[in-house]
Amino acid sequence: MAREPNFEDQAGGVLPCIVVAKFGGTSLATPERLRRVAERLVSMQRQNLSVVAVVSAMGKSTDDLMRLALSINAHPPSRELDRLLATGEQVCMALLAMAIDALGACAVSLSGRQAGILTTAAYSKAHISEIKAERIRAELKAGRIVVVAGFQGITPSGDITTLGRGGSDTTAVAVAAGLKADICEIYSDVDGVYSADPRLVPRARRLEVISYEEMLELAASGAGVLHMRSVEVARNFKVPLYCRSAFSDEPGTLVREEQDMESAIISGIACDRSESKVTIRGVPDHIGIAAEVFGLIADSGVNIDMIVQNVSAGGATDISFTAPTNDLERLRPALDSIVGTMGVPGYAADAGIAKISLVGAGMRSSPGIAARMFHILAKEAINIDMISTSAIRISVVIDAARASEAMQALHTGFDLDSEQVFEETSLSNEELAAKMLKGR
Amino acid sequence: MAREPNFEDQAGGVLPCIVVAKFGGTSLATPERLRRVAERLVSMQRQNLSVVAVVSAMGKSTDDLMRLALSINAHPPSRELDRLLATGEQVCMALLAMAIDALGACAVSLSGRQAGILTTAAYSKAHISEIKAERIRAELKAGRIVVVAGFQGITPSGDITTLGRGGSDTTAVAVAAGLKADICEIYSDVDGVYSADPRLVPRARRLEVISYEEMLELAASGAGVLHMRSVEVARNFKVPLYCRSAFSDEPGTLVREEQDMESAIISGIACDRSESKVTIRGVPDHIGIAAEVFGLIADSGVNIDMIVQNVSAGGATDISFTAPTNDLERLRPALDSIVGTMGVPGYAADAGIAKISLVGAGMRSSPGIAARMFHILAKEAINIDMISTSAIRISVVIDAARASEAMQALHTGFDLDSEQVFEETSLSNEELAAKMLKGR
Repeated sequence: MAREPNFEDQAGGVLPCIVVAKFGGTSLATPERLRRVAERLVSMQRQNLSVVAVVSAMGKSTDDLMRLALSINAHPPSRELDRLLATGEQVCMALLAMAIDALGACAVSLSGRQAGILTTAAYSKAHISEIKAERIRAELKAGRIVVVAGFQGITPSGDITTLGRGGSDTTAVAVAAGLKADICEIYSDVDGVYSADPRLVPRARRLEVISYEEMLELAASGAGVLHMRSVEVARNFKVPLYCRSAFSDEPGTLVREEQDMESAIISGIACDRSESKVTIRGVPDHIGIAAEVFGLIADSGVNIDMIVQNVSAGGATDISFTAPTNDLERLRPALDSIVGTMGVPGYAADAGIAKISLVGAGMRSSPGIAARMFHILAKEAINIDMISTSAIRISVVIDAARASEAMQALHTGFDLDSEQVFEETSLSNEELAAKMLKGR
Repeated sequence: MAREPNFEDQAGGVLPCIVVAKFGGTSLATPERLRRVAERLVSMQRQNLSVVAVVSAMGKSTDDLMRLALSINAHPPSRELDRLLATGEQVCMALLAMAIDALGACAVSLSGRQAGILTTAAYSKAHISEIKAERIRAELKAGRIVVVAGFQGITPSGDITTLGRGGSDTTAVAVAAGLKADICEIYSDVDGVYSADPRLVPRARRLEVISYEEMLELAASGAGVLHMRSVEVARNFKVPLYCRSAFSDEPGTLVREEQDMESAIISGIACDRSESKVTIRGVPDHIGIAAEVFGLIADSGVNIDMIVQNVSAGGATDISFTAPTNDLERLRPALDSIVGTMGVPGYAADAGIAKISLVGAGMRSSPGIAARMFHILAKEAINIDMISTSAIRISVVIDAARASEAMQALHTGFDLDSEQVFEETSLSNEELAAKMLKGR
C-alpha cells in the first residue's frame, strides 16, 4: 500500500490512497471487538489513508432477526424481510461510528441508501446495479472515516433490498470499484487463502498471492474464504483484494490479476462436502433426452454441477449430476416428473460424497496434471466416481469417508506441504483472538 | 366513526374513512402481541376503513440499544445515536407487516423517510416540519394497511433523526394531520384518561371526553397518558384523538375540541412528584434581579416551572421555583454562579415535594374554585407551599408525603368519585392482558 496518492479526481480535490476495509460479523460480535476494529481504522487514517469500512451485522444478529420473523410468519413477505434484516448492519455501522468517535477521530455511518448502493428489485438476492459514490467521496474529503452498511441497497423506487449470501463482501468490492479505491481489504476470522483447508490438511500453507481466476475456481469448489460474487466483481473492475485476519496483524493473501509468467502449477486444493450425487437410472437413450431432463431440472431453480452420462447399454443410460444437498427437496418434484413422464425406472440421491478440486493457473501450460492426480488417488486405493475439468481446475467426486486422505495425499503429491504443521485448536474465538493479538 | 367517506381527494380517487392507530412498545413487546395488533388492524380494514398503524419499538428494545451505545461511547455522537435508535421502530414495523400478511391481508411498512416525515436537524429531539403523505396515500389506495415507524424522520439533507420523548405519539398525530385522517387512535396499556391516577385515587373514573386544552394542562401537570407535544399537534390540526387500551375492546377517552356549552368544572386531578423545589435565599431586592437570576438559569437549558418570590424583608428576598429533579445537576453551575456573583448567601433544593393540579375548562366560568381547593386541603391540615394558576388549572406544591391524601380529598371534594373502586392488581402485563381479553 506504499503507493502514490490517487489523483483521478482533480476537479473536486485530491484524496489520498483509498482503502475499503470489510469486517465480518465475528469481528464485530462484541463492543470490545468493535473497539478493536475502530482502533485499526483510526490507525489506518493516521497513516494518511482515506478509509471506508464496510460492515456486516454483529455476530449472529441476522440469524436472530430471521428467527423472530419466522416466529411471526412462516413465509414472510420478501420486501419486509429485507427491510427487517437490513437493520442488523445499520445497528452495527452506527455503533462502529460511535467507537471511532470515542477514539477522537471523525466518523459517519451510511446505510446502503445513503452510500448510493443501487440494486435490482430482487428482494433477498438483489444485485448491485450502480454505486453513486458522491456522498462517500464527500465524507472522505471532509476527513471522516466512512462506515457503510454491507449486504443492502435500494431499488429504483427507494425500497430496501438485501444482497443475499456473500452480500457484504460484494458491497465492499463494489464500493471499492465505485471509488476507484487502491485496495479492498476483507477482514475475517481467517488469515488468508490456504492451499487446502488446514482442518483437513494440517500442512496446508497460506498463499501470498492468488489470481482472480484461481480464487473463483477455489470458491466455486467449496473454499469458503471469499464468496464468488465478490471475486467476480473484483475481477471485472480490477479491484485488488486482500484477505486477512481481523484478530492479528499477520500478512494475508492478495487476490489480483494473474501477473507471473510462470504460475504455480497448483495453487490450492478444495474439498466440498455440501453436495449430493443424484443418479437417474435407465433413461431412454434418444436424441434430445438430456435437454428434456435438464430442462425440467433447470425449472426447479436448483444450480446443478458436475454432469456425467454413462455409455448407453440396451437403449438406456444412467445420468448423474451433483447438486447442493440442501436443495434436494426442491429438486424432488422435477425428478418425480421425469420418472412419471419419461418411462424412467427411478432415481437415487447419495449425500455421502466429497468433491475434491485441484486449482492452478499453471495447469494451462503443464499437461498431465489430471493423470498425476488420478495416479495419486489410485495409489491410495480411492475410487473416482465422477470427473470434471476447466482450464485451471480438475474436480473429482469420491466417497466422503476418504476425503481427508485424498486431500492429504494430493497436497503432498503436488509438493504443496509447508514445513509448519497446523495445530487444530479447541480455543474459543475470544481465546484465539487473544492469542493472535499477543503476537502484535 | 360511523362517518361519511372522506371526499377531499377527488382527483386521485376516493379513500374511505382514514384511521391512524398508534401502538406503544408494551402492546408490541412479543410476537403474540404483534399478532393481536395485526388482528385488530385487519378487522378495522374489513370494516372498510383505510388503516395506518404507527408503531414504537418492541418492548424495551430502545433501552437495550441505548445501553449498547453507552457501552461503546459514553457520549455517543447524536447523529449516530439517532441512526441506531431508529432501527428499533424499523424492526417492529417490518414484523407487524409480516404479522398482517400472515392473516391474509396486504401490508407495507414505511420508515420515517419513506412515510415522508421531514424534521429539523436537531438530532434526538427533532421536530416534524412537514409530512409528505403521497406514498402513504398511494399505498392506502392500493388497499394496503400501512405500517409507519414512529419516533423518526429525516432532515432536509437525508439523515435520520429521532423525535425524543413522546415521539411516536407525535408521529401518529402528524401523520393523521397530513392525511386529514378522521381519527387518531392511541393504543397503550391504559384504557384512557382518568380523573386522577387510579393508583393514588382508587375511586378515579375514566373520562369519556376531554378537550385538548384540558388534556394539555393534565399532561403538563404530570398525567402520563399522552405527551404534550402530540396533544399540541392534535389541537393545532384539529385531529380527534382516541386513547384506548391495546389489550381490550373497552371504550377509551376521546380528546377533541371543547364543544359543550357547560363543561365539567373539574375534569381531572394530576399529581407530579418528579420535580424539586429550589429556593435561593437572601437575594438582594433591587430592580432587575429576577431577570438576572432567571437569565442565568435559562442558560442552563433546564425548564423550570412554578416561581414564587417572597415579600422582601430587610432589602433581601427568597426566590423559589420548581424544576425536574433529574435536571438538578445541570442546574447546579448556574446556581453556584448566582451565589458567587450576586452576594447571595446560598440555595437549597428539596425533592420531597408533590405538585397537585386541578384541571377543568369549566373553571373559567366558575369563580371560587381556588378557594374551595385551599379549603379542602386546609381541612386535611395539608400545608400549601406554592401556588400557580392558568385559566383552566390551579396547581399547588405540598409535602410529597401528603400527596395521596390530598388527591383523595380533592377528588371527593370536587365530586369526581366513581361508584366503582379501582383495584390495584399485582398481575403481570400478560395476566392483565389475558384478563382483559376475556371480556371480549
